[in-house]
This record gives sequence, C-alpha cells and structure tokens, in this order.
Amino acid sequence: MTASLNIVPLGGLGEIGKNMMSVEYGRNILIVDAGIMFPEASMPGVDYIIPDWEYLRDKQDLVRAVVITHGHQDHIGALPHFLQEFDVPIYATRLTRGLIEARLKQRHMLEKTTLHTMAPGDIIRIGPFTIEPYHVCHSIPDAVGLGITTPAGLVVHSGDFKIDHTPVDGRPTDYAKLAEFGARGVLALLSDSTNAEQAGTTPSEASLNDAFHQIMRDASGRLIVATFASLISRIQQVIDVARQHGRKVAIAGRSMVENTQIARELGVLDVPDDVLIGLGEIERLPAHQVLILATGSQGEPMAVLSRLAAGTHDSLRIQKGDTVVLSSHTIPGNEEMTQGVINLLFERGADVYYDPIASVHVSGHAGQEDQKWLINVLHPRFFVPIHGELRHLEQHAKTARAVGIPDESIAVVQNGYVLTLNGRLQVGERVPGGYVFVDGALVGEVGPRVIREREALSENGFVTVAARYDRRAGQLVGPSRILTGGFVYAPESGDLLDRAQDVIRSAGSVKPGTAPEKVEEKVERALAHFFYRETRRNPVVRSAVMDG
Amino acid sequence: MTASLNIVPLGGLGEIGKNMMSVEYGRNILIVDAGIMFPEASMPGVDYIIPDWEYLRDKQDLVRAVVITHGHQDHIGALPHFLQEFDVPIYATRLTRGLIEARLKQRHMLEKTTLHTMAPGDIIRIGPFTIEPYHVCHSIPDAVGLGITTPAGLVVHSGDFKIDHTPVDGRPTDYAKLAEFGARGVLALLSDSTNAEQAGTTPSEASLNDAFHQIMRDASGRLIVATFASLISRIQQVIDVARQHGRKVAIAGRSMVENTQIARELGVLDVPDDVLIGLGEIERLPAHQVLILATGSQGEPMAVLSRLAAGTHDSLRIQKGDTVVLSSHTIPGNEEMTQGVINLLFERGADVYYDPIASVHVSGHAGQEDQKWLINVLHPRFFVPIHGELRHLEQHAKTARAVGIPDESIAVVQNGYVLTLNGRLQVGERVPGGYVFVDGALVGEVGPRVIREREALSENGFVTVAARYDRRAGQLVGPSRILTGGFVYAPESGDLLDRAQDVIRSAGSVKPGTAPEKVEEKVERALAHFFYRETRRNPVVRSAVMDG
Repeated sequence: MTASLNIVPLGGLGEIGKNMMSVEYGRNILIVDAGIMFPEASMPGVDYIIPDWEYLRDKQDLVRAVVITHGHQDHIGALPHFLQEFDVPIYATRLTRGLIEARLKQRHMLEKTTLHTMAPGDIIRIGPFTIEPYHVCHSIPDAVGLGITTPAGLVVHSGDFKIDHTPVDGRPTDYAKLAEFGARGVLALLSDSTNAEQAGTTPSEASLNDAFHQIMRDASGRLIVATFASLISRIQQVIDVARQHGRKVAIAGRSMVENTQIARELGVLDVPDDVLIGLGEIERLPAHQVLILATGSQGEPMAVLSRLAAGTHDSLRIQKGDTVVLSSHTIPGNEEMTQGVINLLFERGADVYYDPIASVHVSGHAGQEDQKWLINVLHPRFFVPIHGELRHLEQHAKTARAVGIPDESIAVVQNGYVLTLNGRLQVGERVPGGYVFVDGALVGEVGPRVIREREALSENGFVTVAARYDRRAGQLVGPSRILTGGFVYAPESGDLLDRAQDVIRSAGSVKPGTAPEKVEEKVERALAHFFYRETRRNPVVRSAVMDG
Repeated sequence: MTASLNIVPLGGLGEIGKNMMSVEYGRNILIVDAGIMFPEASMPGVDYIIPDWEYLRDKQDLVRAVVITHGHQDHIGALPHFLQEFDVPIYATRLTRGLIEARLKQRHMLEKTTLHTMAPGDIIRIGPFTIEPYHVCHSIPDAVGLGITTPAGLVVHSGDFKIDHTPVDGRPTDYAKLAEFGARGVLALLSDSTNAEQAGTTPSEASLNDAFHQIMRDASGRLIVATFASLISRIQQVIDVARQHGRKVAIAGRSMVENTQIARELGVLDVPDDVLIGLGEIERLPAHQVLILATGSQGEPMAVLSRLAAGTHDSLRIQKGDTVVLSSHTIPGNEEMTQGVINLLFERGADVYYDPIASVHVSGHAGQEDQKWLINVLHPRFFVPIHGELRHLEQHAKTARAVGIPDESIAVVQNGYVLTLNGRLQVGERVPGGYVFVDGALVGEVGPRVIREREALSENGFVTVAARYDRRAGQLVGPSRILTGGFVYAPESGDLLDRAQDVIRSAGSVKPGTAPEKVEEKVERALAHFFYRETRRNPVVRSAVMDG
C-alpha cells in the first residue's frame, strides 16, 4: 500500500457513505460510523441491513478505531455486528456512547468493548490521523462533525448537520471551528447531502414553538405527540411547552422510555420528576392536563400510535376530544402506513395535526443555502458529497459547482468505490461486497435470491403438490395432495383445484421407468401453465413426487 | 322507499366517493363515475380494485344511468365490470367517451353499450334528475362538474377540479355557471377534497412554462419527458414548448401512444403531423432536436422510463447528455420505485429534473383557498366533502367551517354509508360491500384472507412437507420431502433442513392407528416451533402426510 489517502464509502443501501465510511492512509484504517439501514418495500421480511465489510476482512489488523458522529441507528446500529469481527476501540460523545452502551448491553457485548468518550474540542490521535470533533446541530443532541488531519491534508466530515441559530439546547453548530479549519486549509470536504433537493435554508427548531403553543392552547382534551424516540431536542421542546400549559407528561413506547431515560441520566434532557407521570396515572388527571409522548410517527405497526389507531394498545384508548400530533417527517416508503394511521385516528374521533397541515416538524439536515455556507467557509480543494442517494449527491454536486468548486474537484462516488486523493481525485475499482440482510436470527443467510422468491410469493402465492408415484407403471398412485398459500382461498376456488388434479394425473402419466425428478418437472410445468391459463397468475409451483 | 334524497359513496379503497357515487330519489338511482383504485403495498398481487356494488344488485331496475365526470381511470376504469351487470346508458363528454370506448373495445363490449355524448351547457333529464354538466379545469381536458337538480333541491358535484385562470386550453372553470347555481340556491355541495391539506391556491398550468423553457434551453442533448398518459394538457404544453425550441417529438409507451391518438382525433390535442417522429427516426436527428414523451413517471416497472433506467428498452438507451424530466407528482406508495428510477437514470449519465428540484408539475386539484371560493360562490345549505381519504375530508370540513358552514350542515361520510338529505343531514347504516380485488382473470376471488397469507409469505416464505405414513405402525416411512420458497436458500442453509427431518420424524412417531390429519397437525406445530427457535422466523408451514 503506497502512502496515499483513500476514502471508501461502504455498504448500506441506497444512501452513500451514510452507514459506514473507511478513511485510509498507508497501513491505517479509520472507520467513521457503523450503522444500519431499514429495508425497502422490495425486501420483504428483512429486519434491517448492515454494510458488507467483506473488503475489510483481510485488513483486520489495519483498522485502528471506529469514530461515531452521532447516536442515530443508521450510524451506530451495526456496531454489535461489526465488533463481533473487529476488536477495535470506539470513540463517541457522551449521549452517543450511552445509546451505544444500551445496544451492546442487550447483546451482552458491553464488557468486551473498549469505549472512549470524546467531546467537541478534543484532539484525538489515532495512528497517522488527528481527529478533532466539533459540535453540529442535528436532530439528536451531542452530534459532531469531524476534522481529520491526515498526512495528505485536512479532511472535514460534516456528519449529519444543520445550521440552526436558535436550537433547543442553545448550542449552534461550531461556526468558529469551521472557520478555523477553513483558515488552515481543507483538502476535502465530505458533506451531508440529505437535503440537497431542498432550496433555501432549513428552518430552526425554534420555529416549531408557535405551532406547539397554538395546538396546546386549542386542544381541550388530551394531547398525544408522536415523534422519533431519538429526537431528544423535540422531546425537550414538547415537554417545555407542555409545562407552560400545565400538562403532565406520560411516555409511551419502549424506545421512547429508554432514550428519555438515558438522555435524562446524561443531563441532555431536562425534565423535573414532578412533570412525568406513568401511563396508569393518566386517568386520574383532567384530560386537558395530560400529554402523552409516543412512538410510532412512521405508522410502524407495533408502535404506540398504530396500536392506538387500531384500538389494540394495552392501556390507552383514543377518545373523542383527543388531539394527536405527528411531529416527524414520513420516511419514504412509510407513507401508506402513516396515512392509514392518520385516517384511523380521525375515525376514532381524534383531531390530528401533521406536516404539511401544521408546522410541527423541521428537518435535521442542512438545506441548499446551508450547504453552500459550509462549502464557502471551508473552501475545500476537493468536494465529496455523502449521506444521500445518488440523486441527492448529484444535486449537492450541482450546488458545489454553483459556488465555484470546479467540476474536476468534485467526486460523486457510490458505495464500495475507492476514492483516492492524490493531488487529484481518482475513483478506483469497486471493492467486493454490498450489503447484508439481517432477518430474525439470520445474518446474511437471506440473499437476493430468497428475497426475489418472497416477492413472487407475495404477488401470487404458492401451490405445492405431494404425489405418490409408481415408477414401474409410469403412473401416479391415487389423487395427489395440493397445498396452497396466498393463491386462491380454497373453499371459494370452485373446481379449480379439482381440475388441477386432472392436470397432475395426466402430467404424471409417463413412460414406465421415468425418474421421479422428471415427473416433478413435468407436473410443475403443466400446473404452472394451467394456473396461468385459468387465472392469469403465476403462483410458485413445487412438487414432491415420491417413488414407491 | 320514501321520496327523500339519498347520497351513497360506494366502494373504492381509501378515497371516499371517488370511484363511484349513488344519487337516489324515490325509485331512481343515478350513478356518478365508475372507476378503479390501485392497490396499496399491503395488497400484493392485486392488479386493481373495483367498488363493490353489492348494494345495487337488488335495485338493478332502479339504476337509470351512469354520468361520468372525466376520463381518468379512477372514474371510468370499472365501467367494463359494471356494465356486465347493469344495462344502463352512459353519459360522458367527448374525450371521456373516446377513452371509455377504447376500454370497452378491448373487452368487446362496445356494441352492446349505450353511450351518450354530453357537453357543458347541456340539460339532461334522467328520471326525476336534471343534470347540467359544467366545464371544470383538471389534469385532463373535457372534465365537468355536475349540477343535479332533484325534487329535494340542487346538488352540485364538483368532480375533480382546479381553479386555473390560465389553463393550457384557454378554458377556465365555468365561474359564471357556478355563480348562477349559487343564485338559484344550492341544497348540497359535494366537493373535491384531494388537496384539502394544501394551503393557498393551486398554481396554474401556465406556471410550468418557465421551467420547461429553461430546461429545453439548457439541455444540449435529447430530452425525455415522462408524465401521466392522461395528462393531455401537459402533453400539449411540452409539445408546444418543444416546437419553439426546434425539437421533434417521439411518443413512447402504449398508453401514451393510445391517449394522444384519441385526443388528436377528437381535436383536444393540437399537434401538426410534421412535429411527430417515430422512435426509429430518433437516431437520424441531432440530439438537441429530439424530445421523447414517455410513460413511467411513477416508476412503474414495465413502463418506458423504468426500462430506460434498467437498460431494458427495446430500442432506446439512455446516453450521456440526455436530460430526463419527471413532470408528475409521485402517488403515495410509489416513492421508492420512482426514486430508484431517478437514481438509475443519474447512474446512466442522464441529468434528471423532478419535483421539488424543478417546477415541472402542478396539481390538477383545488387548494384550500380555491375550495373556499367554491363554497362561497355556491353557499350551499349542506356541505359534503368527497374525493379524498378520511383525513382529507376532515381537513375540507375544517375549511368549510372556516368559511361559515355550520358544523351540523357538514357530513363527513365514509364509503358505503347512506347520507339522507331530508331537511337535515342524516348518516344512516352502512350498506353491504366494500371493494373487490381484481387479480389477473379473477374478480373478487382473492379476498382479504388470501392477501393476508401473501403478506405472511412475503415476510417469511413457506415450508411444505410431503411424508408417507404407515398408520398401523404410527410411523413415517423414509425421509420426508421438504419444499421451501422464500425462506432460506437451501444450498446455503447448512444443516437446518437436515435437522428439520429429525423434527418431522419425531413428530411423526405416534400411537399406532392415529389419523394422518392428526399427524399433519403435529408435524406442522413441531416444525413451526423448530424454525422459529432456530431462525426467529415464522414461515408458512403446511404438510401432506399420506397414508399407505
């Protein structure tokens, strides 16, 4: 390995460099973040996806550390899997570390992991890298960007960030540090592209206060606010406004309870004890003195809001006069679920507020003008958009060109490609790997082939046939058993399955001595043809033709 | 039946009164629209959904006619199914009729159907109803709203509409007619709620011209514009701008070719012959003289744009320098597909413009201020929001209250509920029926039970077991056959399926004489338990235990 600086966005699905990034110099590898992605609709049954670090496996001893930018699942969620293979120290800020510890504890991995707490302003030397975390605003407290000084020059990794002059915790992004980086001279800026398609600046968290005050003033009954459990600043904001309106706060949902507890312990969430009430105490208070913070703003079927909408929550029921607020944006792919939940909440008599009918959510990512600010303050030699799908990176590249970064100094790199910064930008070969499905207890055993089968099953279901076969006679013995699922509802399918018996019998009439495998092929082909002709559908057809 | 006026929004999924509406007085039923809905992600394999008109089946002889407001599939698509059961005349405007005829022709149903052409300004008497269609702007030409005079009073059905002072065809919504209705006195307004969540007014179609001109000016290569095939005015607009920039137009995609042909024949699309070129002629022209109008703006896998993105189109390939415009909004549920297509187009070297990064689409539905205008000009006694999910109707009801309609004069009714206007608004019982899945050649044979099975299959796949059983011994004979799909990829599943054999054998060891059905139950229970323990997954498990 020659001593040049390589940057490799790894794995993850769709979003580039979001879940994991490898920064390499000589025989030293620094990993930034180790997160998970949530599956698309086209990956049924997959719980989540982890980056494929195949490429790092034969470089085990070169990996020096993992530095985490913030505590969201798409940045920390893959750590338990990664640490099973790599015995390296983790660097994280206080809240981020707390969230990582909770995850490692669940898996009984906390003891054998080396965790270092870092803070903005620290200078951390790891091999040839000097890391300077700096404070950024994002939708979770204790988020940082990273200045990474390498022998090739200073690389700035923006993390997930927004520019917010009036954040809930009163701490804006560290403009001075960024200006100082700019003065030092920046070789490359790797910058968050999530909102590259949003013109203008991203509104401040403070802009939500008006909407929250207005809703709490108008709501005569209970208020139920659903948001992301990791959105600690939103939780703080809702609780602060609730207190001003004399409402007590109950917290519903496992992840919301867990995160608020961690955040309170670490002092990043400020809630006096007397404000909090248990779910069991709600009934004792007048409706207008109650606020419930709940999970489920994405319409996730098992979260609190969905169970309220469906009427299946253990202890809570929506009642006429309730006001529900979804303080979140809907992650693409979750629209139908979220909208279904909203419809059901209306049906149960709640009034419901959500984006865009009320200003109850702002993004945690920089808009185009904010992105321009960062580029202008750092005036990097090279610009590498990260954190976004390809279309976001392309837009961010356009934004960079608009502020004067020359085209040849911009690299739009996809996951798994090696970007070399060696006087100029060079995109190399694709390294092996992609991403790994985690499904139940199976990691990586569910591949694209199984996923394609599931898609086929979800469209048309299956038909399997169990038949006994007399090889000497070249005949099936007796009627076959036909098992179906997701195809047609048997009691209503009329004589379709009866006629399928005829098709099976006739396909099973073969030359005496024919091998059963041949008969299976023939039966499956004949049945597939028959079902398509009769129903215009293609169920997955399998058969077991048993000799003797 | 007493002589009162009933209004029943029928079937359809999610959106209320969108696909079909029944207006009833005495022994007379007038149907407004007969459309289809497209399935949600949670209905895998379903092609489309038709309203369930079960409720009308014993009133066959009372149904007088179907009046169609405009030619979109969600308003005309169910006609072929409806006309198989109901022999009634259809009333439609010229273009709408043309689109209906194309659909009926495909099904060889054109000859036996009675179609009447209606035009704005006509006065049509059907039983006790006097129907006055009036021109409205929408995202398809020849759209109308309906004044329906009944013995109980004048009902105005807005159809799908927008307020556009500068529409492409130069014909704004008929404000004068609406004012005249208002002067006559309106008993009830049934009004389009699609954009009830959008503040302000909906921008005019004319507002797109700037963006189209700019994109065509800047694009040095070919231009590919994808939009809805039914958006005739958008197609007109794109072609008009293309001509000004000296581009010839090729049309790609079956529905786009079909619709433009019908629209040209009927004179609602004005394109000189010399502007159009065939797909085969594209290569002969310089890239900057080519514009391709294509289907697939929703990322539909079989449409032109997806095939261009995937590189699987018969004759067209994306080339570096191509500019692609998605002039459409993404229908909820299609986000992942559409975004995937955009990413792939970028990957192939195209530049891509889409909402929100360019102003290349406007809605065809009225915004909140437009909705207020309609209510104010008609000042109806009763207000019934229609065309939208429950949450849209609730917002539209809020809007109506904001302009002074008293709460008791507003009815938010769900599909299948009878609304009686009898001096006051009364919501009655739910009529039988809901909606009917159409899947391949099967209409209604795929019910919720099968859909639930498909969902389970898509999550975890299936395992079926075929075993031979010796009832006298209470033992299975030899190893069983295990067939799986979508569960684990067998060659990679290690010894999981081997160990499953042991589980089957041991579950199949029973008291001599046990019935095979009992053994099946036991095997299925044991296997389900085994697979869950080993994989944390729940495949659909079925078994065929064959005696003898």
